[in-house]
Amino acid sequence: MKIDIISVVPQLMESFFAHSILKRAKEKGLLEVNIFNLRDYTNYKHGQVDDYQFGGGAGLVMMIEPLVNAIESLQKDTKYDEVIFLTPDGEKFNQKTANTLSLKNSLLLICGHYKGIDQRVRDHFITKEISIGDYVLSGGELGAAVLVDAIGRLLPGVLNDETSALMDSFQDNLLAPPVYTRPEEFRGWKVPEILMSGNHSKIEEWRHEQSIERTKEKRPDLLD
Amino acid sequence: MKIDIISVVPQLMESFFAHSILKRAKEKGLLEVNIFNLRDYTNYKHGQVDDYQFGGGAGLVMMIEPLVNAIESLQKDTKYDEVIFLTPDGEKFNQKTANTLSLKNSLLLICGHYKGIDQRVRDHFITKEISIGDYVLSGGELGAAVLVDAIGRLLPGVLNDETSALMDSFQDNLLAPPVYTRPEEFRGWKVPEILMSGNHSKIEEWRHEQSIERTKEKRPDLLD
Repeated sequence: MKIDIISVVPQLMESFFAHSILKRAKEKGLLEVNIFNLRDYTNYKHGQVDDYQFGGGAGLVMMIEPLVNAIESLQKDTKYDEVIFLTPDGEKFNQKTANTLSLKNSLLLICGHYKGIDQRVRDHFITKEISIGDYVLSGGELGAAVLVDAIGRLLPGVLNDETSALMDSFQDNLLAPPVYTRPEEFRGWKVPEILMSGNHSKIEEWRHEQSIERTKEKRPDLLD
Repeated sequence: MKIDIISVVPQLMESFFAHSILKRAKEKGLLEVNIFNLRDYTNYKHGQVDDYQFGGGAGLVMMIEPLVNAIESLQKDTKYDEVIFLTPDGEKFNQKTANTLSLKNSLLLICGHYKGIDQRVRDHFITKEISIGDYVLSGGELGAAVLVDAIGRLLPGVLNDETSALMDSFQDNLLAPPVYTRPEEFRGWKVPEILMSGNHSKIEEWRHEQSIERTKEKRPDLLD
């Protein structure tokens, strides 16, 4: 799978993609992530990519021309399955979307920064708008990193143990059960006895009950 | 404001905090962000901080002792307003929570990694559990970065123009209106005439209508 990212502050994401599971995914050849600097695609002086918004108001807007240059230039090499814009008013990202996107061959992610991008880019070049949550960030870069992480770990072979991702929260509309490791007792707080029983079917039963209890308590909406 | 972060892969977040508005916030002395490596607080050999989960199953669990060592050691220097654990089954992070947290003096963020952290840490040391969305990531580091970004940009003086953050999506339960910048025409696609009119009250009226339209279409739940 290939994920290309267009950003005006590519250095923001550098350390993130250089470590952790993404590094492993790249080394194994399972995931290719390329970050492109929008300033390399502008014809304006001094690498300008943004300007004041028409109609007045605070905040700069990313111009259409550099973005279209970048998108069309990258599209010459790759036929992307989706051109995704990260924006707080996009479709809410969730595990189901992560699963769907993990089956694609190639994605292009566009990170806004400052006040946003010229609406005409959204109208004519974006195939999918995604929000990672109901909050405002200073740019789309963290959103892009979230997508790459959530999608990347689902690719077969990226996690050491493939059953691991299937046991995560949301995969079956239930929250994950509590987990414990040694020591068995710490300051008088003990691990639930059942987990020490060695009875695997009882343990699985307990975990399933805990998942349901936790979901009922914290996220009853998931059970609807 | 001070935000301390405990992580087992602190290098993941390095480039993020070294750039963008967070760099500026730090330089202006408005926000202090410190990342602590959990491995500096373990008494186990070889910097071990995780182990197999009791009861069996895929994935390693972060042990209680190194986490408690780290938390209690940091609490000697700082009386945190909240000790926050980033987890997909936590309370959903949104702009309102960002606003509330931006008024605190100091926060401690705990990033899980691998399969999660020993439940006893959550039961006895965490004051608030936060999820940035309904998806699973390989660790809490991106969640911590999201919190720091969303909160940091709300601190007075961090953004160049303070009115900018107040105009963002969600601050008034409406999505932001479309934005445009030059050129006025690109491949035949024009900027809406009203924005070129110079009539500021009409422009504000149009923007408000556009915000309501967009919210009705994309996020009717926000209007309830």
